Amino acid sequence: MNDTAELQVREEHPCHGGVVRFYEHTSRVLGLRARFGVFLPPAAVAGQKVPVVYALAGLTCTEETFLIKSAALAEAARLGLAIVTPDTSPRGAGVEGEDKDWDMGTGAGFYLDATQAPWSDHYRMGTYITQELPALVEAICPLDGTRRGITGHSMGGHGALVHALRAPAFWKSVSAFAPIVHPAAVPWGEKALTAYLGTEREAWQQYDAVCLLEAGHTHPSTILVDQGDADQFLERELQPWHLEKAAAAAGQKLTLRRHAGYDHSYWFVQSFAAEHLRHHAQVLGQG
Amino acid sequence: MNDTAELQVREEHPCHGGVVRFYEHTSRVLGLRARFGVFLPPAAVAGQKVPVVYALAGLTCTEETFLIKSAALAEAARLGLAIVTPDTSPRGAGVEGEDKDWDMGTGAGFYLDATQAPWSDHYRMGTYITQELPALVEAICPLDGTRRGITGHSMGGHGALVHALRAPAFWKSVSAFAPIVHPAAVPWGEKALTAYLGTEREAWQQYDAVCLLEAGHTHPSTILVDQGDADQFLERELQPWHLEKAAAAAGQKLTLRRHAGYDHSYWFVQSFAAEHLRHHAQVLGQG
Repeated sequence: MNDTAELQVREEHPCHGGVVRFYEHTSRVLGLRARFGVFLPPAAVAGQKVPVVYALAGLTCTEETFLIKSAALAEAARLGLAIVTPDTSPRGAGVEGEDKDWDMGTGAGFYLDATQAPWSDHYRMGTYITQELPALVEAICPLDGTRRGITGHSMGGHGALVHALRAPAFWKSVSAFAPIVHPAAVPWGEKALTAYLGTEREAWQQYDAVCLLEAGHTHPSTILVDQGDADQFLERELQPWHLEKAAAAAGQKLTLRRHAGYDHSYWFVQSFAAEHLRHHAQVLGQG
Repeated sequence: MNDTAELQVREEHPCHGGVVRFYEHTSRVLGLRARFGVFLPPAAVAGQKVPVVYALAGLTCTEETFLIKSAALAEAARLGLAIVTPDTSPRGAGVEGEDKDWDMGTGAGFYLDATQAPWSDHYRMGTYITQELPALVEAICPLDGTRRGITGHSMGGHGALVHALRAPAFWKSVSAFAPIVHPAAVPWGEKALTAYLGTEREAWQQYDAVCLLEAGHTHPSTILVDQGDADQFLERELQPWHLEKAAAAAGQKLTLRRHAGYDHSYWFVQSFAAEHLRHHAQVLGQG
């Protein structure tokens, strides 16, 4: 089966000399139609292969959120970086209760592969964002698959950290905005990991950045994390001090910046998104 | 009655070293609760009076749209410019049919004062954005009322051009993205002006930028207009050549730039919003 089968460009808009596109395709991994967004900088529109940052959004968001709200496209255009934005979960899987809670099911896929029924048939965002989506988007757009970064916000920050630590040769640069660093130890994570992976906590470790660091997984580049100190989820769900402690113990280079007054919103994300892209560009040897 | 009575801050978010706020208040002019947004740059947060650009959104939009989608706040922060964003119409006026069409009534106030029943009781966005809102927001925020600019997109571009030409001493700088330049001659405008102002076309001229130029109204600064040449509304609703012709005849300085491939969306607006802010800053003697 051809990965580009049933691929549809839903929207295409010139932007900052490049182009924003929203695609829909039939995902083999998810067993459903799925959507993603792409920003191609002017260099890519001109046919040049460019490095690419995958940006994972948080709970309740979609493939549109980061592209619309991060205000990062001018800087991506300037740096010659592409951005790819997957959705945050499968849509329309038909799992009972998947639309009931905003922090579970639809819009809350946690970038992992569920092993528990009834989620395991479709909730496979882990394989989707690390295999199917890169293979597809890098086949249809002029992206340099040897220079690939990953970032994300909140649940997406969790996804970025986890996948970069699991596959540091695949994701060469990594950053996060207000990430869930230790889902195994906080309410959002406990709820999702229990449902998707079962009650056996050992299975959770592969999807927990702090546990991965404790188990010896590190990333060769510096991890950049920004966190607002007025974030309404800081104490209960985010707890970045666990990441600091685990990184220090593992010898992982980490730049964790606390920003006075900033909250959990995209007003916070957009304030630092251009700096994150410069971090990725520098690690990826661009610009 | 105190203009700041019943003023409520609905949201406040630090952003780019400044702050985004969304307010709600009781508008005497509209006779309803009304919402608006403000971005204050770092200089204003530090207490300094800063110049301000009022940004008017287009059909179906709200006070949130420009702040979320223009990606202009980093540049506003850098330049030390505030941005004020009114809503696009009264909300909940209770006029029969006001929610029926997307180009009439709710979300489509056209920045004018309706004279025709049943619209005339509440649809008074003209006086609202030129008197009540500036008096209110400049009383509660450190804004320099002697350095005030106006911009807008589509219907909001119409509003910006019209009000700048009607009161050039009040609005010292002016720009527009894909504006409706000649509403009296296009379907969107004919529909709205007929409903709001009646069938007597002479009454329409005060709310039509081309008619105002033809009647001798000019602005002392250069008007900056950006227009995508792939804009889906270009031929039917926007017709910027009327503005070029009228400006040339009136001796009005106009920079009208056509952009190959760009459409009518905020992906277009965000591509040029920073340049518009630099235009305003330059005319307002800032930065």
